[in-house]
Amino acid sequence: MKIHDLMTPALLIDGARLDANLSTMASALPGTRLRPHVKAHKCTALARRQLEVGHATFCCATIREIEGMAKVGLEDDLLLANEVLSAERLGVVARSGARVTVAVDSEETIDAAVRGGVGEVLIDVNVGLPRCGCPVERAGGLADKARQMGLEVRGVMGYEGHVVGVADRKKREAGCEESMEKLAAAHREVGGELISSGGTGTYDCNHVATEIQAGSYTLMDTACWALELPFVQAMSVLATVISVSEKFAVANAGLKSIGMDHGNPTIPGARVLFCSDEHTTWIPGLGKDTPKPASMPIPEHWETQKDIRIGDRIHMVPAHVDPTLAYHERAYVVDGEDVVDEWAIDLRGW
Amino acid sequence: MKIHDLMTPALLIDGARLDANLSTMASALPGTRLRPHVKAHKCTALARRQLEVGHATFCCATIREIEGMAKVGLEDDLLLANEVLSAERLGVVARSGARVTVAVDSEETIDAAVRGGVGEVLIDVNVGLPRCGCPVERAGGLADKARQMGLEVRGVMGYEGHVVGVADRKKREAGCEESMEKLAAAHREVGGELISSGGTGTYDCNHVATEIQAGSYTLMDTACWALELPFVQAMSVLATVISVSEKFAVANAGLKSIGMDHGNPTIPGARVLFCSDEHTTWIPGLGKDTPKPASMPIPEHWETQKDIRIGDRIHMVPAHVDPTLAYHERAYVVDGEDVVDEWAIDLRGW
Repeated sequence: MKIHDLMTPALLIDGARLDANLSTMASALPGTRLRPHVKAHKCTALARRQLEVGHATFCCATIREIEGMAKVGLEDDLLLANEVLSAERLGVVARSGARVTVAVDSEETIDAAVRGGVGEVLIDVNVGLPRCGCPVERAGGLADKARQMGLEVRGVMGYEGHVVGVADRKKREAGCEESMEKLAAAHREVGGELISSGGTGTYDCNHVATEIQAGSYTLMDTACWALELPFVQAMSVLATVISVSEKFAVANAGLKSIGMDHGNPTIPGARVLFCSDEHTTWIPGLGKDTPKPASMPIPEHWETQKDIRIGDRIHMVPAHVDPTLAYHERAYVVDGEDVVDEWAIDLRGW
Repeated sequence: MKIHDLMTPALLIDGARLDANLSTMASALPGTRLRPHVKAHKCTALARRQLEVGHATFCCATIREIEGMAKVGLEDDLLLANEVLSAERLGVVARSGARVTVAVDSEETIDAAVRGGVGEVLIDVNVGLPRCGCPVERAGGLADKARQMGLEVRGVMGYEGHVVGVADRKKREAGCEESMEKLAAAHREVGGELISSGGTGTYDCNHVATEIQAGSYTLMDTACWALELPFVQAMSVLATVISVSEKFAVANAGLKSIGMDHGNPTIPGARVLFCSDEHTTWIPGLGKDTPKPASMPIPEHWETQKDIRIGDRIHMVPAHVDPTLAYHERAYVVDGEDVVDEWAIDLRGW
């Protein structure tokens, strides 16, 4: 099948570019130095590719992701890097033979792990991002409590989410260092072999973590471009031009096929005006707000031309990969104009 | 089952409030005066409720929505209010016995309707929103062309999407009137029995349309609150408080369960700081940015308290209903604390 035969909107993954990203990351963080975060892609077929380049430990954000990974046998070491108050479904997965670890940051979440039958935990520590995680000074006490309850405490987790997206590298490094001092302090009180942290933006400057929780590096998005990382854009949403007027054109992919929390998608070579549910209105040809193509880690043929016509196909690059994939049932793996595979986005929902 | 038994995040529909909205609209625009837009809810069970209060004609934004509506027999008069270049799947639905009409705004889309085997069209006219629709002066020519090609032209369509969200009612009315003058002019050239237009924001001030394409009125969202309409908030995303610190709390619903294009969700009685993939961080108690509860068309018991605890459930109200439902597999219909039904969001995808 050719790309042109696909109904649109369609989520495309460029297989060679994905492989390049997987290879770059596996060289930098081989084996268990990376704990790939599947929340970015929600796709067991892609997770299997991560296993094939050497990563057998995975990170999840939802119980459904844990269940789905275990179902296809990617179950050697699954971390739910999130707090839950009902761990019963995780207990079922653990009893089926998977290794399941869950993050805890309070007595309530420790109790939930015990009740649910999950035997292993990480103490989640707040390292600066105003989200989950206990204060550094409570980490040791929570670890004691968990051990008293019969849980195995494998170490600590702490996500420097407030700095992973800082464009200035020096500031990103400094912010990461500050966060990791907190996590190291907590780890001294907690013990255990794991210090789990980081993301795509800090994969090469977080020197405290024993494992990095990165996911976006696989497919990338425009929010990650500012970080000037050695990863290339491997995903796009293919859309069809359905209407062209004197001043603008309209494509049939909108805010129900593209995550919008980081802003509008980019159409290389064009200026996006706005997105509706199933439409994006844009101006063909370079507008003043259009990023310079030279700075875009995209294939050249994605760039749209000025003489756009009804029926043309265009590539849209989302600003945020995670919520984009969560809208799609499947992704098409492409090699140039050929569709070479179809992957289910099978870890959606909760 | 009780609400407390649900895994979170969970999409809740308050049945009584939905019924109130359906009844209010059916009184204002009975029968075919309303062509309910299913893109807002993507749920055939909810569409069936719209049929039960008298609306048998429906409006869709995607081919999948048309297919799904026909599959459950809601097929008396289905309008795809959008342009397509591949109408073959629509032709299959039409040949199965459903009445299918598609919007066209160019020679290419007319050709696609003919090729696909869709016999009836509306001429889509641009009435001010920079999106699909031909210029007013081209409408007559396109209708002629469509008729020459053997298509039945049922009339015109034109969406005043640039004014439906204008908060000032006088300005909204004036903008709507201006748009409808254009649509009426196009209709004089095109003919046909239908002038299809409007949305929830202009349902009671669009006096030119023979039928209004409204959808959001069923469930509502915070973007619609500013319009001061007689509809009440009937949907929320139920989340669990998974972490509480000195300064903020964290709930387990984030930007993968809530459409973000119109901004952050609202937690009644609290101040939302930000959303991550599966989290929302917020400050319990009223913050200065919190809308006054008196202006919120929500149930009183949705309001969160200051003394929030881990494990508490909270109701989050999205800023935009359409992309929120598109993330969910199902909705739970509730009556107070009781879960009385479960509806599949079965029109997702394309």
